[in-house]
Amino acid sequence: MLEMLTEPRGVAVIGASTDPAKLGYQVLNNVIQYGYEGGVYPVNPTADEILGKKAYPSVLECPDPVDLAVVLVPNKAVPGVLEQCGQRGLKGAVIITAGFREVGPTGKALEQQVIDIAHKYGMRLIGPNVLGIIDTVAKLNASFAAGMPRRGKIAFMSQSGALCTSILDLALGQGIGFSRFYSIGNKADINELDLITAWAEDPETRAIMAYLEGITNGPEFIKTASEVTRNKPIIAIKSGTTSAGSKAVSSHTGTLAGSEAAYDAAFKQSGIIRAGSVQDLFDIAQAFARQPLLNGDNIGVITNAGGPGIMASDAIEHAGLKLAQLTNETKQALQAKLPPAASVANPVDVLGDAYADRYAMAIDAVLADPNVDALMVVLTPQTMTQIPETAEALGTISKKYGKPVFGAFMGDQAIAPGVDVMRGHSVPNYQVPERAVKAIAAMRDYRTWLNTPALNVETFDVDKKKVAELIAKTRAEGRVTMGDAEARDVLEAYGVPLPKSGVAATPDEAVRMAEEIGYPVVMKIASPDILHKSDIGGIKLNIGSASEVRDAFDLLIYRAKARSSSASTATRNSVR
Amino acid sequence: MLEMLTEPRGVAVIGASTDPAKLGYQVLNNVIQYGYEGGVYPVNPTADEILGKKAYPSVLECPDPVDLAVVLVPNKAVPGVLEQCGQRGLKGAVIITAGFREVGPTGKALEQQVIDIAHKYGMRLIGPNVLGIIDTVAKLNASFAAGMPRRGKIAFMSQSGALCTSILDLALGQGIGFSRFYSIGNKADINELDLITAWAEDPETRAIMAYLEGITNGPEFIKTASEVTRNKPIIAIKSGTTSAGSKAVSSHTGTLAGSEAAYDAAFKQSGIIRAGSVQDLFDIAQAFARQPLLNGDNIGVITNAGGPGIMASDAIEHAGLKLAQLTNETKQALQAKLPPAASVANPVDVLGDAYADRYAMAIDAVLADPNVDALMVVLTPQTMTQIPETAEALGTISKKYGKPVFGAFMGDQAIAPGVDVMRGHSVPNYQVPERAVKAIAAMRDYRTWLNTPALNVETFDVDKKKVAELIAKTRAEGRVTMGDAEARDVLEAYGVPLPKSGVAATPDEAVRMAEEIGYPVVMKIASPDILHKSDIGGIKLNIGSASEVRDAFDLLIYRAKARSSSASTATRNSVR
Repeated sequence: MLEMLTEPRGVAVIGASTDPAKLGYQVLNNVIQYGYEGGVYPVNPTADEILGKKAYPSVLECPDPVDLAVVLVPNKAVPGVLEQCGQRGLKGAVIITAGFREVGPTGKALEQQVIDIAHKYGMRLIGPNVLGIIDTVAKLNASFAAGMPRRGKIAFMSQSGALCTSILDLALGQGIGFSRFYSIGNKADINELDLITAWAEDPETRAIMAYLEGITNGPEFIKTASEVTRNKPIIAIKSGTTSAGSKAVSSHTGTLAGSEAAYDAAFKQSGIIRAGSVQDLFDIAQAFARQPLLNGDNIGVITNAGGPGIMASDAIEHAGLKLAQLTNETKQALQAKLPPAASVANPVDVLGDAYADRYAMAIDAVLADPNVDALMVVLTPQTMTQIPETAEALGTISKKYGKPVFGAFMGDQAIAPGVDVMRGHSVPNYQVPERAVKAIAAMRDYRTWLNTPALNVETFDVDKKKVAELIAKTRAEGRVTMGDAEARDVLEAYGVPLPKSGVAATPDEAVRMAEEIGYPVVMKIASPDILHKSDIGGIKLNIGSASEVRDAFDLLIYRAKARSSSASTATRNSVR
Repeated sequence: MLEMLTEPRGVAVIGASTDPAKLGYQVLNNVIQYGYEGGVYPVNPTADEILGKKAYPSVLECPDPVDLAVVLVPNKAVPGVLEQCGQRGLKGAVIITAGFREVGPTGKALEQQVIDIAHKYGMRLIGPNVLGIIDTVAKLNASFAAGMPRRGKIAFMSQSGALCTSILDLALGQGIGFSRFYSIGNKADINELDLITAWAEDPETRAIMAYLEGITNGPEFIKTASEVTRNKPIIAIKSGTTSAGSKAVSSHTGTLAGSEAAYDAAFKQSGIIRAGSVQDLFDIAQAFARQPLLNGDNIGVITNAGGPGIMASDAIEHAGLKLAQLTNETKQALQAKLPPAASVANPVDVLGDAYADRYAMAIDAVLADPNVDALMVVLTPQTMTQIPETAEALGTISKKYGKPVFGAFMGDQAIAPGVDVMRGHSVPNYQVPERAVKAIAAMRDYRTWLNTPALNVETFDVDKKKVAELIAKTRAEGRVTMGDAEARDVLEAYGVPLPKSGVAATPDEAVRMAEEIGYPVVMKIASPDILHKSDIGGIKLNIGSASEVRDAFDLLIYRAKARSSSASTATRNSVR
């Protein structure tokens, strides 16, 4: 669908520079150095060769095949360059250049020009005003990012180019991999909607991660997202939803950011998992990208330290998950093999002197337990703890069961070798159990979403005109409330079923109506002066006979008169 | 107060071993290798020398001076060894050995024996069942921890020894320093109360950090804590407060963990800041240890990336803090020196191409603004970003203003040099702005606590006996509610002032009372059958004349009769 980005048969870098301090050099260098296998064509009218590649005066001279342009020329030169790309038959462009919509009306006009040219030639655009795009499958780094992430199963898009550099640095540090990594900037053409649509079908992508400030077409995005999330999770930061944040967005890009509650509701309705920070985004996306979903809420915990086991338990309960109740078989199996001081109830405490083999035994036993839906392995680095060996056991044994497993190896340098081993087994690790639980809870929410039938909006045939008339009449009379009878008419117009009723002006009338309706009946004051009937005892329930009707009638009339300030109460009050 | 731990004039390691695989070797090695300047005496009846130190058959033979014993002998040998320590005149011991209260009744008896011996000789004990203690001021590492933290201003205690190893590894990785780092294990003698009392007076400690599972003497701890927190913040994890966590505590140590709400309330009452995870504990403690308190809620934000600026704004609002409103002078000063595309409103966006000098100018301008109480500097690692230079500017300039500053340099490897520079200036860094905001909010809460007058419980002289009698009478009559008159008596007995009132049985009586009290008056039904008077229109407000009193009397009597199921309503109903 966006093959010009994922499988370009040749890339022209327009605005490539011979000066290593310039972005035009850095981008070209990135395109070359990370192993892209198609042709790479620096476009620079004054250079013969850059970074060992023959340079061309314009894209028109680049040899075949060339599908994608990466554009770095000054903003005013972009339309001309793009026009040439169109003539040359390119399929798309990544416009890194800034100075468009984000700088005011002139920039906006320039951006429109760019859009029109792309439309004329049927080209797709990323940007302008972006860091670029990275595709680890195509081994293409068409960006000025300082590094290349590992290949992985997360596709990421960001409306903030600058944020991409932080995310990339974090990902490099934590060894997190991506399939696609796109900075989408001003979204002149390709926006979040195009990308979730494309990535929904992308076999290289298991989870979609997004940083969004504004959403171009809200209703359409929500509709598409609610379909996409049936197949793949979307985890998103939507920033600028508070009034402070929204003011910051508006001074930043001039777009409206929308309210917290509205976005929360929209995300919920479409199954998007909302992350509260970049840290949460990573923590959650990693879980989805690396582990299967859990089939229930019952979490097993194995630990070599009591304290962190307790913290894990607290976090599990806080998140509305459950500590799995281990079967007696499991407990007996654990008891037989663990030292007497160990705890065989969940959380299973294998004690501080546990070597990897003891962990391995417990991991196997707990994962085998039918009451366990997911496993968290907590580890503190004791002197005797075999960290990579324990990680290896977790990774290997977990493959037998198809249940999700999560590491909570707590520490930094000491646990790093274990985290590396887990990564090799696609097991995510979290520095504290609370972060692991947050990710597990997001998976639980997503599973709940998958089990929720798709919302089918049913339309009813109702008498809207009648209701509009009733409201108009009320307003015309200067009222802000409707009487009982009018309210009933509104409900009837919308087809809401109502109990039988009538308005009686005398006790005889009331008895006749009650017998028509059938006992028991309810009687209440019908007076435009009295809105809160129960406050003055104006409602009588469970009236079972004619004589009770007569008593109730008198009482209600009495109360209505006592309450009503008008002199003509007798004519205005009646009993319904 | 606990000088035997902070300034021991000699340390005996009882149970020192020649086998590098044994804790007895590792602890001795730690005592020696980190620079402790007093005498170190391995005690081992079968060795002549361990790690280059002369070994002694028992503590009795160790030369003077020796204040502290670190005990690693098997549990059953501990009482004998401790007896010798007492005879030798030692001031205290750190009992690393496990196998006491935590293993059941026999262990508990053994622990009592140990306590008794300590009491007999006036020795203070840490443990048993601990990792040991680390004192960076005394350069003493009397533990089997794998490393020595930097010297710093945080004192830490943990009821979980295993957790200490994770905390230490995290602290080493993040370069966080401690003054004291104690594992307190079974708390046979020294407990959390002793430590907060000692650390309150400790000039080396600016913030106290604790991991607690159970609190030995709750009321006393809360009372002392509420005094200590007037001088120093205490940041604590109290785990096991959920029912799942509490079950885990009980299977772990057999103690009761207490409920979530109770601990939340107790911590709030005593000014203790409760951390939700080890990560939060670090994040918050760092802020307190390294930065001054903020004087108000107005946070300035400087960023080189719009997106993270927006996220910071969102987090600030979520936490109940405010984005500072910069003065016009500040905005003009920024405008004059920043590029046109920059944003001079808070968050100040210095743009992605900002070098350190541009950051420095903005930091100076924003910190100088009287509307700014604290500053957060957000940085994403762009190609041109001068990371350590920007950190240096932040550290240096912040010293001029005495306002707290926080780094939110977002990333991993790329930002590490900047984080190091900040550490040198005592500026904490947080990987995402949300974590910085959480720490700032904790400081705000603490400032609020400092500004809250100490709770002075005032005792009133009340008639408790009268109330007890009234309750007894109500119960004796088989009732679960009190009538109006009785309720008034209860309030009067407690000295709660009440409006004048009386019970009238006739309209004349009602008028007389109303004139005595003075208009306007309120009238209501006084009937034991009618509890929810307003539901039946049994209360009349704002009655201004004798004739209105008569009308209201009749109406209320009528309603009371209509409502009351009793036959004898006439005698039972009256109007108050």
